[in-house]
Amino acid sequence: MLIAHVIKEKGAGVHTIAAETSLEDAARQLHERRVGALVVLDADASIVGVLSERDIIRELARRGAAALEDTVGAVMTRGVIVAGLDESIDDGLSRMTDRRVRHLPVVDGARLVGIVSIGDLVKHRIAKAEAEAAAMQAYITAH
Amino acid sequence: MLIAHVIKEKGAGVHTIAAETSLEDAARQLHERRVGALVVLDADASIVGVLSERDIIRELARRGAAALEDTVGAVMTRGVIVAGLDESIDDGLSRMTDRRVRHLPVVDGARLVGIVSIGDLVKHRIAKAEAEAAAMQAYITAH
Repeated sequence: MLIAHVIKEKGAGVHTIAAETSLEDAARQLHERRVGALVVLDADASIVGVLSERDIIRELARRGAAALEDTVGAVMTRGVIVAGLDESIDDGLSRMTDRRVRHLPVVDGARLVGIVSIGDLVKHRIAKAEAEAAAMQAYITAH
Repeated sequence: MLIAHVIKEKGAGVHTIAAETSLEDAARQLHERRVGALVVLDADASIVGVLSERDIIRELARRGAAALEDTVGAVMTRGVIVAGLDESIDDGLSRMTDRRVRHLPVVDGARLVGIVSIGDLVKHRIAKAEAEAAAMQAYITAH
């Protein structure tokens, strides 16, 4: 089962944020969109990072309320780890646990087509395991 | 494979926080302990909630910097969903995706013995799947 299936079901939209946005506005956008991470774009609409809830908590821990006036670009996680549409869900999950991230932006070639969370992938992985178990049961019953 | 195996490998400690702590201090503790959630205890050391990174982001979104002076008890997630030591990893993962939580405090009877994240469970689930695939390969080679 591929990342493409998750994106197809979840929808191909992806929530992005401009690098010059303040952390206070970013917290508002994370909350309103009900997501844990936003893909950060620069003025040319190129992907330059990911801003997660964890990035904001880290800056609050370091500098308290003053951090809320920082820009997303100053605190985001750079060196974005992405997934391809034709990558398997299991490979995506392995990468997330190895790299300790909970979100993977999904690209089709160079184009950003979505974002998947660890919860999205687990949900699909469970659905697949249940379908396999039902198929096995049907096979056993039939033979 | 059971939650007990995850706790055994990860260690039985659990990071807790007192309900009267400020959100600013809570952000510091989340960051220093490198965790995404803390179990909230009242003055009698009873579990009264869980405080996650998401709870803090939500309050920042609603009220900005002023939220950092709130207490953990005022904003934590109540109605804690826990896991038992003898519960399977797959059941734990299903519960997390159904309830949209990323952490499950683990109890042994009434006693809090640990906390597992969705990342912890996925990591163990992948290790188990790899061991099964290796065993299947060894079986096929031998027969």
